[in-house]
Amino acid sequence: MSQLTVVKIGGNVIDNPDALKRFLTAFATLPGDKILVHGGGKIATQVAEKLGVQTTMINGRRITDRPMLDVVVMVYGGLVNKQIVARLQALDVNAIGLTGADASTILAKKRPVKDIDYGFAGDIVEVDSGQIRFFLRQSLTPVYAPLTYDAEGTLLNTNADTMASAIAVDMSHHDAVTLVYCFEKKGVLAKPDDDNSVIPELTPTLYAEHKTAGTINKGMIPKLDNAFSALEKGVSRVIICHADELAQAVQQSAGTVLKK
Amino acid sequence: MSQLTVVKIGGNVIDNPDALKRFLTAFATLPGDKILVHGGGKIATQVAEKLGVQTTMINGRRITDRPMLDVVVMVYGGLVNKQIVARLQALDVNAIGLTGADASTILAKKRPVKDIDYGFAGDIVEVDSGQIRFFLRQSLTPVYAPLTYDAEGTLLNTNADTMASAIAVDMSHHDAVTLVYCFEKKGVLAKPDDDNSVIPELTPTLYAEHKTAGTINKGMIPKLDNAFSALEKGVSRVIICHADELAQAVQQSAGTVLKK
Repeated sequence: MSQLTVVKIGGNVIDNPDALKRFLTAFATLPGDKILVHGGGKIATQVAEKLGVQTTMINGRRITDRPMLDVVVMVYGGLVNKQIVARLQALDVNAIGLTGADASTILAKKRPVKDIDYGFAGDIVEVDSGQIRFFLRQSLTPVYAPLTYDAEGTLLNTNADTMASAIAVDMSHHDAVTLVYCFEKKGVLAKPDDDNSVIPELTPTLYAEHKTAGTINKGMIPKLDNAFSALEKGVSRVIICHADELAQAVQQSAGTVLKK
Repeated sequence: MSQLTVVKIGGNVIDNPDALKRFLTAFATLPGDKILVHGGGKIATQVAEKLGVQTTMINGRRITDRPMLDVVVMVYGGLVNKQIVARLQALDVNAIGLTGADASTILAKKRPVKDIDYGFAGDIVEVDSGQIRFFLRQSLTPVYAPLTYDAEGTLLNTNADTMASAIAVDMSHHDAVTLVYCFEKKGVLAKPDDDNSVIPELTPTLYAEHKTAGTINKGMIPKLDNAFSALEKGVSRVIICHADELAQAVQQSAGTVLKK
């Protein structure tokens, strides 16, 4: 059983060139096989604005109409993904930039319209972990943009947290997988306003208590639901940490570790 | 020795959704291993314009300053490349979209400034044909955007004709390679204004005669120089044909075949 680390970085790191540089340098030093999944950042919104494409968000999620799909494919799949790949190459990481469509690794379907029409948003159907493992065996480091595709050949915008979790779960059938969510806080906080109140270990019981107390709320809830679900489905370790503390968090000296 | 077909399509096909669909359908039916190299098309110029990035061309080549580099990475590496990959997947071709930076397959260096500063334009240094062959052995079909990178991790804009030729030459050390340039004419024309005057076989002697007579001129000259050079360096066959006649041209019933 191989050791594999799946790391997700969010938009706030991508929007900050210095933070991104620090993060990629730390990512490059991680031992063993690794996969990076990146979010989008504000660049897509800025590019959309300049191109006259309107950005609509509902419940914190982007509505991906056809013009917006073109923008996210350009920005996530092109600009952000390829810049990360080229920078990792300069750090001696043999990166390969992918979307779900590439090598048919992550098939999705367009989200059905219920109350809200999310447009070209993709819900993951299947991860081809065999194909991904084949890249890893060739000493390649997959770098995923948050894009998938459907059987008709349409590209779809996909939440990066969900994508990282789906990859980690599927890879965990053969490998011992650590899933790391890097973001702008030092971990899951016991007091939302106190950056030093990191909860070192979070169990489902403690999570439920914090939800009831309201100390864990908003955007953290879908993130943690995703994270606990990954743990339930076979991922060995899930860590939530600051992008600047990736290396320490993997060694369990920073961030929040989730426990079953 | 495996049979491999390297196909280059230009911007005019990419700019026309119907022509692109016909082309990809024909490409999907080609037997054996194949690699696609695509150009950019006018979308980059249109996106640049909307983003307020000025397009400067000197001798038919785009000057790639920093803002224009971002545009071509978005459009070539993102929009065009990923749309082609997703459509090929729907045609049962297991495509993988790449730039030279991905899996470090095509290293380049920034073109030195002599009379003209081309900006972030890349001259190819090395093709890792072993890595590309490894994708082919896994039944993957590489789809290259005309982008490379340098050792410092900077992405570079690279001419797609040159890229197709460099890949074909390097692959020819192990494989029997057919290199096909698809464009908007039915082949190399004996009379520039007569679309039916296709020269079925072009030798260096005949090429020299047509250059002297002025019947082969302008943009065809660098294209044919590139093509003859590939033949000299080990590519088995070079064909120049209309994008709509790819399948027939590979069977030598359409287009112009270059002969040593």
